[in-house]
Amino acid sequence: MNNEINQYLKEKKQLIDISLPEYITKLRAPEILKKSMVYSLKAGGKRLRPILLMASIEALGHDGQKGIETACALEMIHTYSLIHDDLPAMDNDDLRRGQPTNHKVYGDATAILAGDALLTYAFECIAGIDHPDIDNDMKMALIQKLANAAGPEGMVGGQQDDLTAEGKSLTIQELQSIHLRKTGRLLCFAVEAGAILGQANEQQAENLSDFAKHLGIAFQIKDDILDIIGDEITLGKPVGSDVTNNKNTYPKLLTLEGAKEKMNKHADAALHYLKAANVDSYRLQQLMGYVLDRNH
Amino acid sequence: MNNEINQYLKEKKQLIDISLPEYITKLRAPEILKKSMVYSLKAGGKRLRPILLMASIEALGHDGQKGIETACALEMIHTYSLIHDDLPAMDNDDLRRGQPTNHKVYGDATAILAGDALLTYAFECIAGIDHPDIDNDMKMALIQKLANAAGPEGMVGGQQDDLTAEGKSLTIQELQSIHLRKTGRLLCFAVEAGAILGQANEQQAENLSDFAKHLGIAFQIKDDILDIIGDEITLGKPVGSDVTNNKNTYPKLLTLEGAKEKMNKHADAALHYLKAANVDSYRLQQLMGYVLDRNH
Repeated sequence: MNNEINQYLKEKKQLIDISLPEYITKLRAPEILKKSMVYSLKAGGKRLRPILLMASIEALGHDGQKGIETACALEMIHTYSLIHDDLPAMDNDDLRRGQPTNHKVYGDATAILAGDALLTYAFECIAGIDHPDIDNDMKMALIQKLANAAGPEGMVGGQQDDLTAEGKSLTIQELQSIHLRKTGRLLCFAVEAGAILGQANEQQAENLSDFAKHLGIAFQIKDDILDIIGDEITLGKPVGSDVTNNKNTYPKLLTLEGAKEKMNKHADAALHYLKAANVDSYRLQQLMGYVLDRNH
Repeated sequence: MNNEINQYLKEKKQLIDISLPEYITKLRAPEILKKSMVYSLKAGGKRLRPILLMASIEALGHDGQKGIETACALEMIHTYSLIHDDLPAMDNDDLRRGQPTNHKVYGDATAILAGDALLTYAFECIAGIDHPDIDNDMKMALIQKLANAAGPEGMVGGQQDDLTAEGKSLTIQELQSIHLRKTGRLLCFAVEAGAILGQANEQQAENLSDFAKHLGIAFQIKDDILDIIGDEITLGKPVGSDVTNNKNTYPKLLTLEGAKEKMNKHADAALHYLKAANVDSYRLQQLMGYVLDRNH
């Protein structure tokens, strides 16, 4: 099974890796801006969000390719958030996935603009979808959900809360509320967009959304755990940096064992809702296993 | 006539001034983020773009109120661009319209996030329009045009070109190409959105778009001229700062007289296309007069 999911991930990642820069190179825009956008898009990691989006479409019996534009738009928004997050005014990170961050290569001003450009262009990509089975009602639902997940009530709101919380001790509820917005909402959008494009019925959509919510929490706990026990070279960032920064993490609040226990509880809940969704859950289940068993 | 257009501008500006913060205060988002967003929205100037949008709808015989959400979304995007433009990493401005800039009040990190939030939320506002005469096809056209006008092929691209051009001498063609993107595209969108919402036919839409293009150039030249001859207190920013910064401006490349001549040429062209659009042009013509005769 491991080989099978690895093959699936590899193929989907390749598809995303090839498609993403193509959206940018065709733009009539300043070359340096395009280079800066492509630089960070290419520095991408596992492409978890776009793959989750396409796998969700497939779980509903449709062709995952139907979601390629939306998957790329989602990855653009994820990428813009990383570029802005890394800026000196924010986390001030020089490295991401072992590579110099965008502003280290292109300067702060162009990094800000490249982020703005990716965010804006993501919506244009969805608005521009030209597919016989995707009508304007579906596109409008995608844009509304994506804007809400990425905006002040979603990811950006979570980033602000995270900023405000720096140096303060949080309760586990406060920590979870930040993560639900900062990372959870975009992950949820991946599955919800899959539900829209795969034409899920209302009950399926609801269960898939709950599946994604719990998967998102488990994913974040896993990230925090890896930051403690992970290997510096595998992760490409200094291990334990969240602890050094006095950041609030699940292991810090719950102990390592407690964090693992909480992760497993949310993984079980995710599985429960996935089953309840009554879809072809095979691949999503594999994906979940991959995400939570990974060591990087 | 002066009194009449002033009254019209005042009423429309009031409508925008009241509506804009209401979109933000209702959000379930961090208070400090909302405050930061509202701060810059409230520091707004003439509200030229949203007023132009509503006046364009009216020129087509529809109720300007039909455009309130789109007008506010447009102003959000204009405002986000000012917040990011003022950042230390960009223009490093401490004052805008005589008030401390966003990052001076809320810090660089929150200013970046407030800009990101306004940009993202603008699309959600359009997607969420609930009006019996505005269907998803119209909303999709609005979103596609707005994203293109604001993104890498539009405003953000112009900002990058402007950045690259700093300290270099430009030809008049290069200067115009930057302005067409940096400020012209959003101004054009105001009129184009009015054409969509006012259900212009193809010929009307085309002529209105050309009207807006020339108005945008004339508007930018007027801005450059005001920067030379304007009064520091009236403008709320140091007069001649563009010259001190060694920025490329129309008067610098063409002399003051040459710039005025060019402005009038584009004003004439704008008027020509406005007449050709065969709409009720009275108010748009007044607006144009106001924009080009203003002394601040």
